[in-house]
Amino acid sequence: MSKDKIKVILEEEHIPKQWYNIQADMPNVPPPHINPQTLKPAALDEMSALFPRELLLQEYSRERYIDIPELVREQYKKYRTTPLYRAKGLEKAISTGCKIYYKYEGGNATGSHKLNTALPQAFFNKQEGIKRITTETGAGQWGSAISMACNMYGLECVVYMVRVSYNQKPYRKIFMETFGSKVYASPSDNTEIGRMYLEQNPEHSGSLGIAISEAVEDAVKRDDTHYSLGSVLNHVCMHQTVIGLEAKKQFEILDEYPDIVIGCHGGGSNFSGTAFPFLEDKLRLGKKVRAIAVESTACPTLTKGVYAYDYGDSAKLGPIALMYTLGHDFVPSGIHAGGLRYHGASPLVSSLLHDGIIEAQAYRQQEVLCDGMLFARAEGIIPAPESSHAISCAIHEAKKADEAGERKVIFFNLSGHGYLDLYAYEKLLANALGDSDFYAEEMNKALEKLPAL
Amino acid sequence: MSKDKIKVILEEEHIPKQWYNIQADMPNVPPPHINPQTLKPAALDEMSALFPRELLLQEYSRERYIDIPELVREQYKKYRTTPLYRAKGLEKAISTGCKIYYKYEGGNATGSHKLNTALPQAFFNKQEGIKRITTETGAGQWGSAISMACNMYGLECVVYMVRVSYNQKPYRKIFMETFGSKVYASPSDNTEIGRMYLEQNPEHSGSLGIAISEAVEDAVKRDDTHYSLGSVLNHVCMHQTVIGLEAKKQFEILDEYPDIVIGCHGGGSNFSGTAFPFLEDKLRLGKKVRAIAVESTACPTLTKGVYAYDYGDSAKLGPIALMYTLGHDFVPSGIHAGGLRYHGASPLVSSLLHDGIIEAQAYRQQEVLCDGMLFARAEGIIPAPESSHAISCAIHEAKKADEAGERKVIFFNLSGHGYLDLYAYEKLLANALGDSDFYAEEMNKALEKLPAL
Repeated sequence: MSKDKIKVILEEEHIPKQWYNIQADMPNVPPPHINPQTLKPAALDEMSALFPRELLLQEYSRERYIDIPELVREQYKKYRTTPLYRAKGLEKAISTGCKIYYKYEGGNATGSHKLNTALPQAFFNKQEGIKRITTETGAGQWGSAISMACNMYGLECVVYMVRVSYNQKPYRKIFMETFGSKVYASPSDNTEIGRMYLEQNPEHSGSLGIAISEAVEDAVKRDDTHYSLGSVLNHVCMHQTVIGLEAKKQFEILDEYPDIVIGCHGGGSNFSGTAFPFLEDKLRLGKKVRAIAVESTACPTLTKGVYAYDYGDSAKLGPIALMYTLGHDFVPSGIHAGGLRYHGASPLVSSLLHDGIIEAQAYRQQEVLCDGMLFARAEGIIPAPESSHAISCAIHEAKKADEAGERKVIFFNLSGHGYLDLYAYEKLLANALGDSDFYAEEMNKALEKLPAL
Repeated sequence: MSKDKIKVILEEEHIPKQWYNIQADMPNVPPPHINPQTLKPAALDEMSALFPRELLLQEYSRERYIDIPELVREQYKKYRTTPLYRAKGLEKAISTGCKIYYKYEGGNATGSHKLNTALPQAFFNKQEGIKRITTETGAGQWGSAISMACNMYGLECVVYMVRVSYNQKPYRKIFMETFGSKVYASPSDNTEIGRMYLEQNPEHSGSLGIAISEAVEDAVKRDDTHYSLGSVLNHVCMHQTVIGLEAKKQFEILDEYPDIVIGCHGGGSNFSGTAFPFLEDKLRLGKKVRAIAVESTACPTLTKGVYAYDYGDSAKLGPIALMYTLGHDFVPSGIHAGGLRYHGASPLVSSLLHDGIIEAQAYRQQEVLCDGMLFARAEGIIPAPESSHAISCAIHEAKKADEAGERKVIFFNLSGHGYLDLYAYEKLLANALGDSDFYAEEMNKALEKLPAL
């Protein structure tokens, strides 16, 4: 088939039948999560108040491939496979000799890749007899996805939404409510944790760390309720590998292979889903593929954080994990890429970075949104601010290759669209983005509170 | 292939190579448009201040199939073909024995079918050396599509947006600006017409009829500028037939044929694009397919209007056409389906309705948005309020068939998503929709002002 195709779509039967579990191939599998009460490795049973057993088994599995339940695959069929595009418009706009490809995960009804894990999470919880799911959301993409998935399986859904996003994105709140979810601005007065933060500051803008604490507190209080997380954890990252697995097939059809694979990085699930299937080739076959995780300079976990054991949430209710972290108390500035405002990172991604198998880069909000707008005009899709970080990196790498006289094949995942984030572009157009820089001092204060392990 | 498939996707090569022109087959082709100044049939040259010659030739062509330029087809490839879904979730939710299918045109970056005509319109204008396009938009879907298309072809784009939508949908405005368009709330002080309406009422909520007048006035004032319309006209309806042409192929693959074809109806382009290719089978082969145009009870042009010559715009600047109309002065209430607030209708659709070849139905806003929410929860796509009218009709027809003990195959086009219309669902959830009924008295007053032809 022609290398000049601008779109590659796979037939339904090419929706993966198994997820890829990188724990089978990575040199250093992350250690088990730590129970925040005992400060000892958490047994599966200790985490069963939060997660169904099937997901916990996946969390620690060393099997290379794990079957996707047929019912989940049926749901995937509603929106998968997703297209792989050649970004000819963008290539022209930046006059590069490189080939840039992107996979578009924003075509489904929730507008991002998050549905890939929301569906199996709701499925396994339903299977275990759970009636109610609590969760947090930053940008609202995860909240939208889990709301729709819960609605499909007849589960109640309660979402703690970081207040700054709750105020910035009223449409995301209505979206979740349209699917029947209950949405609280976090910190809320619905939990002890929330009330504590509100007492300190009634106008508290919230953080993912706090919202997670609220959702966890709510979940452990009720037997019929589990907690659900949209990123970070091993099983979440694994569910997202449908992205990279499809992409590999699409590149096969094109008779190409990417030199560079790029994904934006908040908690790590998008980057993992995009890059891990290519890293399988690197780890097992010695393929020379570079994988780059891209974050915001306002929350530079991978590029400026430390590799240490830390709490996943601000109130220290959830498991402790070995990961890159800025400290669980770190509250980044209210940038528009709400999905990238997490103090920690996926333990899998962290271990791979620590071992030099992947790379990380950080970009500034102003540059990222400008690149997002350039992409919109060149390619006709308004990208989510989160996804725009991957665009900035792709542009940067293409220019670098041009300067070196090399013609690279660059692939990134466009994890979501920006139709419910247009406020960010309005601020850009009005030249009113303000400062969004990283505050090293805040990080240093936050890092003093790492658990003593 | 299995009749139980829930999604049918066609390969890129099945994107139609020609549009279907129903003028070749309909019993009564509409008479030529009338010049509002001479009150005589307008020669092509008289309309060339507004439209490029190629589009005017299409407007009056009797050729059955008209070639889609290869460059336009290349742009179609970015988002076509579009999927045909079996609405199994909806069928279950309403316990019907009927099969319900829908084609989804909201997957492209502008979120609706409008891009299908925006691309060729921008293309033919560019080809003729035009530098600048003026247009109106109601809901903002058309404005978004033409903004993106103009940006692709390097044309300036000026959008007059009905003020009630401008205020209801700030995201739509930012969307258009992101693609470089200039957006005015209409009535605006940018035109004589606009200033006249503003003098009458500085808070005037606007209407499609007024916004069209403003765009036309702006276009005729400048040689480098053309006007572009997102519906109503024959060539616009024809461009949309890519929808129905693809759908016919998709039904072939399923070995099915719809008994009923449904499209929502504002100006007529979505209904035309969906139904005309099936009507070709009815008119030429005697197929017993029913085609239903669905409108809002707040603006019931086809179900309560008169079949008469009327102006397309409020200020009587644009062509006069024979069509169903509520009178060019009729201003419907500010319902959330802004795309269905047009006083007139496509002359092609009007003639077919007048000849009894198609049917029309009207639904109330409250019912429509409830059905839209039911659909969202059952199918996982939040529909645009406009498209939800088609959903209401599909549900109504399915229930009717169930009562009669019949198992119909029902097909509707889901013309767009509702992510930028979530405000409507918020009002529904808050039980604050208010009255949106039709005011017959207003229509009677407006009908007194029909042109004397």
